[in-house]
Amino acid sequence: MRQAYQISLSYLGDNGSKMCDIASNCLRDATKAMLDTDLSLAEAVIASDVQLDEMRAIAETHAMELLALQSPVASDLRTVVSALWIVADLQRMGALAIHVAKAARRRHPAPVIPAQLRPIIERMGSVGVHLADQAGVVLRTRDVELARRLEQEDELMDDLQRQMFAAMLSPTWSHGVAAAVDISLLVRFYERFADHAVAVARRVIFLVTGENVGGDTTPALTAPER
Amino acid sequence: MRQAYQISLSYLGDNGSKMCDIASNCLRDATKAMLDTDLSLAEAVIASDVQLDEMRAIAETHAMELLALQSPVASDLRTVVSALWIVADLQRMGALAIHVAKAARRRHPAPVIPAQLRPIIERMGSVGVHLADQAGVVLRTRDVELARRLEQEDELMDDLQRQMFAAMLSPTWSHGVAAAVDISLLVRFYERFADHAVAVARRVIFLVTGENVGGDTTPALTAPER
Repeated sequence: MRQAYQISLSYLGDNGSKMCDIASNCLRDATKAMLDTDLSLAEAVIASDVQLDEMRAIAETHAMELLALQSPVASDLRTVVSALWIVADLQRMGALAIHVAKAARRRHPAPVIPAQLRPIIERMGSVGVHLADQAGVVLRTRDVELARRLEQEDELMDDLQRQMFAAMLSPTWSHGVAAAVDISLLVRFYERFADHAVAVARRVIFLVTGENVGGDTTPALTAPER
Repeated sequence: MRQAYQISLSYLGDNGSKMCDIASNCLRDATKAMLDTDLSLAEAVIASDVQLDEMRAIAETHAMELLALQSPVASDLRTVVSALWIVADLQRMGALAIHVAKAARRRHPAPVIPAQLRPIIERMGSVGVHLADQAGVVLRTRDVELARRLEQEDELMDDLQRQMFAAMLSPTWSHGVAAAVDISLLVRFYERFADHAVAVARRVIFLVTGENVGGDTTPALTAPER
């Protein structure tokens, strides 16, 4: 019984790190689809929608069963409750990546991103993917120091966001209102994706140490200054 | 002991409905501050930031203690786990209202919203406040039918969002890129606020019926069509 229980507990961790890999791939592919105006890749990302929803639903059912049948305490209890939070963050990361893919599909065959801004979006994509990958490592290793470092990396995303807003609000902006509306929302999707990856890392800190560092408490929105 | 346990369980519901009232007031005041360019009201909303964070942290600690000490099962277990999700949604609703207040503060004394679009933002504010109030009623009464109706009301928010994007993308738009960037983000904050109110209602459906209707699974973003 104890062994079955341990297997059940470790399932939650394995499932989380698999969901992390999927979210990471979704954002990588969505960013590529957008930059390459690759409609079939965008469609593939959008079609992967149900996968994370299903994995989350299974993990939730599993966690509820563990709570009901095994009455875990102490760090086992934190593992199960953290899993409930973590799968919610990971599902949301997938949904945000799919929002990016949908922007690519909506504008196809036109590009969403003006050529001059492609490097910023490329960087936002790679920072997001890296954060998701690192969150996956944190889930597998329960490395609290690595988890704390994710917070600093998230600042890169904030810098990129500021650069993008500065470009849109510059007097030399020549791409019109429609592109600015698209990009404002895209930037928000990347920022929130990163926030949720950091939230996953925070949940692991809680799981390991019992220290509640606040989950998805996004700092104040980095304001687009006029 | 049983009585103390029931009091503990009902605390989670009471705390949730109080947080709902706070989130609702935050959005009402933030919208008013933005429309009236009322800096002191905006500041007051922003200062209320810590309140929902603290209430969430207390509720989480309380829920973890209940899980560890009482090992609830069946509907009691669903109540405790739902509380963990619900306080996360409510904290997020507060954070989104504060984003609106920060936009008002950032642009002060200039208005964020051009006169022509004020009626749409007023409606978005009142739909958001109403959804939060209804979510509060659902938390107090556990009325599953009312909870299901919230989903339909959320469609009003989607309609308003479409109107706002249509206005920004119209050839007659004369307010420039900076206003469009602000409004794109604001519209997103109102939409997400409404989504989280619906998610609270869904959690109550789960709590009462055991039927998992997916929490914060936002439908595809209503696309700004060019």
